[in-house]
Amino acid sequence: MFNSIDALRALCAELPGGDAASVAAVAQREAQLTKPPGSLGRLEEVVAWLARWQRRNPPRLQQVDILVFAGNHGVTARGVSAYPAEVTAQMVANFSAGGAAINQLARSAGAALRVVPLALDRPTADFTVAPAMSESEFLAAVATGYQSVAPAADLVCLGEMGIGNTTAAAALAAALFGGGAERFAGRGTGVDETGLARKRAAIDDALSRHADALADPLRAAAALGGRELAAILGATIAARQQNVPVVLDGFVSTAAAAPLRKLRRDGLDHAVAGHLSAEAGHRALVEELGLAPLLSLDMRLGEASGAAVAVLLLRAALACHTGMATFGEAGVSNKS
Amino acid sequence: MFNSIDALRALCAELPGGDAASVAAVAQREAQLTKPPGSLGRLEEVVAWLARWQRRNPPRLQQVDILVFAGNHGVTARGVSAYPAEVTAQMVANFSAGGAAINQLARSAGAALRVVPLALDRPTADFTVAPAMSESEFLAAVATGYQSVAPAADLVCLGEMGIGNTTAAAALAAALFGGGAERFAGRGTGVDETGLARKRAAIDDALSRHADALADPLRAAAALGGRELAAILGATIAARQQNVPVVLDGFVSTAAAAPLRKLRRDGLDHAVAGHLSAEAGHRALVEELGLAPLLSLDMRLGEASGAAVAVLLLRAALACHTGMATFGEAGVSNKS
Repeated sequence: MFNSIDALRALCAELPGGDAASVAAVAQREAQLTKPPGSLGRLEEVVAWLARWQRRNPPRLQQVDILVFAGNHGVTARGVSAYPAEVTAQMVANFSAGGAAINQLARSAGAALRVVPLALDRPTADFTVAPAMSESEFLAAVATGYQSVAPAADLVCLGEMGIGNTTAAAALAAALFGGGAERFAGRGTGVDETGLARKRAAIDDALSRHADALADPLRAAAALGGRELAAILGATIAARQQNVPVVLDGFVSTAAAAPLRKLRRDGLDHAVAGHLSAEAGHRALVEELGLAPLLSLDMRLGEASGAAVAVLLLRAALACHTGMATFGEAGVSNKS
Repeated sequence: MFNSIDALRALCAELPGGDAASVAAVAQREAQLTKPPGSLGRLEEVVAWLARWQRRNPPRLQQVDILVFAGNHGVTARGVSAYPAEVTAQMVANFSAGGAAINQLARSAGAALRVVPLALDRPTADFTVAPAMSESEFLAAVATGYQSVAPAADLVCLGEMGIGNTTAAAALAAALFGGGAERFAGRGTGVDETGLARKRAAIDDALSRHADALADPLRAAAALGGRELAAILGATIAARQQNVPVVLDGFVSTAAAAPLRKLRRDGLDHAVAGHLSAEAGHRALVEELGLAPLLSLDMRLGEASGAAVAVLLLRAALACHTGMATFGEAGVSNKS
């Protein structure tokens, strides 16, 4: 699918834009609905956004897919996480059994959950001593994510599970946007003060070890990221190609998709940030990316949990757009 | 039910508190669920809040009622609104026909919608020249709201419709918390610059005309509020008595309930602010009340629309709390 990082970069350069005609059609109906113009705020905005990237008026949300990619990280050997690495596989089993938060939230959101484990028995390399992934390992993970997006989907939520992956995400975010570990490293699943110090040291070590690769967003993702992050990047690219709008989840998911935004200014225009995570680096990251999260609920779980909750808002927004009466239909006087 | 404002005040002084045992039971289960402690953020908080005020573990959301109170306002004669006063009754008809935003949102939220028009053919007096309501008119509206809360409800959302009522709400908020029209008057349904100037002048005129009444939160509500605001106050009081948690909507709904908070510091502890409205005065008002809105989506429609969207979050939160597996059940390793 992509034989090289250069081929992937070329594919990213050719992604399609949105459809202004669908946006205009949404706006025309919106102006006639029985409410003051703009009074549903972001609920109106997201309907227009869905229409733009689905290239369809009205947009629809019949098939909403939640993809949760899971990966393991060699950097966990540095003591960067509050939980042992085996929890990644245990949580994948929990997803299959229906016991995790995302299972409940996917049901609430009327979404189909698909969990994609990526070589859990082969953690990435400890990036303080070597690149996390070789070029071929990185491209394979990107391809897995790319192929996970169903062209028939109306919306895809991208989430992750991976003990140690806020360390990888913080390193990648710092590589792309500067500021070092200080700016992007947080407590993840709840690491203590000494663990956080180890996490920051590991990130800063890696930034300096891989400095030569970091000017290229894709090589940075290979050197510092993880398989589940690469898969999210691949899924974000595939979604753009297939007219499927994307809901990003929290810090890791957003950092994973960020290289596409570095490659092109409009790279994440088909994506919305489902929520602002409580993970320390997320606010700085969404600001760098120009994303305005829909929710801010102090969530920091990952698993696409924040994205799934955001789907509730999108469904409510679409219900208003398609179901409301116009001023004419309802016999309501318009603005004087 | 209440023969006088003093009787209503006495009733407010005797309202019950929440149930700490139900909160403790929620916390005990929450700590065992397969996620880092606290990682669902406000979703965890709201489950504990529901349990506290339902006095029940686990809490439930089987019967969610949305009450929309409608009233008309004599102050519309001052040119304070972008829409003519007849829109209040037209929108009530639109609610009945199912064409308004709240109809779609109530369906999304799995909630029952009940619309309660209050003497729409008898607008309140123009409060720049007389008290909006007499004591008996005010108490009758409070009683209507009080009686509208079903004791069997698990949750009640309180919203409103009333052309001119952001003027009344701003006047009441300014009476309770100071700062005059400047602090609390916004554009409502979208009044223009000269209309906003008229609105501010009307509010400041009323604050000065009724200055003698304003030290008493209930007399302030009678002099400056409206029937739908009084009904929301009554419903908020009834909900507290009947162990029914409340979701407040936007600026008007919050201002309507605010007198109870002025009467007692814990007066709105059984209420959550569903969202932060884009209406200018709402942020200052929720800060005065110590409320932390669940959503901030630039909505400013009223009709309980923001409260209804917040119900989606409460349902998602409860689904996680009741449906997730524990570490033991799932065989997931806990924090190292």
